[in-house]
Amino acid sequence: MKIEQKIEDMGLALPPVAAPAGLYRFTRRVGSLVYVSGQTPDIDSVLQVKGVVGGDLTIEEGQKAAQLAALNILSVLKIELGDLDRVKQFVQVMGFVRGVPGFEEQPQVINGASALFKELYGEAGVAARVALGASDLPEGSPVEILAIVEVED
Amino acid sequence: MKIEQKIEDMGLALPPVAAPAGLYRFTRRVGSLVYVSGQTPDIDSVLQVKGVVGGDLTIEEGQKAAQLAALNILSVLKIELGDLDRVKQFVQVMGFVRGVPGFEEQPQVINGASALFKELYGEAGVAARVALGASDLPEGSPVEILAIVEVED
Amino acid sequence: MKIEQKIEDMGLALPPVAAPAGLYRFTRRVGSLVYVSGQTPDIDSVLQVKGVVGGDLTIEEGQKAAQLAALNILSVLKIELGDLDRVKQFVQVMGFVRGVPGFEEQPQVINGASALFKELYGEAGVAARVALGASDLPEGSPVEILAIVEVED
Repeated sequence: MKIEQKIEDMGLALPPVAAPAGLYRFTRRVGSLVYVSGQTPDIDSVLQVKGVVGGDLTIEEGQKAAQLAALNILSVLKIELGDLDRVKQFVQVMGFVRGVPGFEEQPQVINGASALFKELYGEAGVAARVALGASDLPEGSPVEILAIVEVED
Repeated sequence: MKIEQKIEDMGLALPPVAAPAGLYRFTRRVGSLVYVSGQTPDIDSVLQVKGVVGGDLTIEEGQKAAQLAALNILSVLKIELGDLDRVKQFVQVMGFVRGVPGFEEQPQVINGASALFKELYGEAGVAARVALGASDLPEGSPVEILAIVEVED
Repeated sequence: MKIEQKIEDMGLALPPVAAPAGLYRFTRRVGSLVYVSGQTPDIDSVLQVKGVVGGDLTIEEGQKAAQLAALNILSVLKIELGDLDRVKQFVQVMGFVRGVPGFEEQPQVINGASALFKELYGEAGVAARVALGASDLPEGSPVEILAIVEVED
């Protein structure tokens, strides 16, 4: 359980997650790929931060929100895999940012998630990435991030 | 043809679809995965509902639009597979909702699609999901939904 | 190197690309699939066109921007594969367009990319596609396009 130890050493924690209400799953596995549903900055499936980056929230606050969404990606991967050390590589990360009109710094915001994955997994944590704006996100979240990861058989 | 029977039993119908104009395909298969292009609430490839959820359209109308987009996903899957019973599982469903500014209920709207897939396929119809806002959608559609499904070889 | 010759014959060129700063990769391969990160109309990783389609930019200018983003997809695929002839088929193309409020012509804009892929690869260049609006894109880009391609082993 090296990855979980690293998370702890960084002073972070895997957020608990409440089971989804029934019409979607946190993860779906097909072969060695795990598709992770869109994650927001939740603790125990309760949104912790709401607002618009570049307005209500600074870029740094947006990055912290992205980091928390990334921790939720890891939480649901742990449920799927049992052990986060079984992740082989991050394949695709897609991050949506709700910013003020004209906001152009989506990549910097999503770096809050990408930096965590790289810190934990090294080069294997660096994915093909998409970072862009979304007009609105569920419950007013500032970010929503999804991922596809390759895992050990 | 059990799935098609179920659709009929629900009082629904697979919409006819007109062939795409040539620069995209309804579906692309690679191995056991079928990628379905973004679907809108069409009948015979003509958009049936236009507008903004939370403004022109209620959430219930948005859910109906999402259900019709989902039926189009099934229509094009039938063209690809011949028989909808050959779907093994829904892997990823991504749903974009055009809502009024500040709209936060994208998951409820996309449930209109997810509930159909679950009704038809049970747990295999429940995918890793992403639901979020889009500023604008083709032809003014209120929803656009794409899917990746695993199919029998 | 037939594809590169075709690009030249069309009077186009593969743009040079600067290495990403470290938190994402241009491409990530898993099995025979290559996931390409979101590409914008860059030359040497510098954005060449900024603005909103239907406002600052005409649809034709948006199509040109989409074509340049598509050329960047090919540039990073060449880095991954060595030879663009090793692409077997385009599986999924996802194109986001920043338009004026109410803009409905995202598919026409993304056709600027799709037409290039089809011209170069024929039917194998025609993907399952998603075209939709995004409120804002990195650095104010009018389009962002990502792709998943199947490649020779």
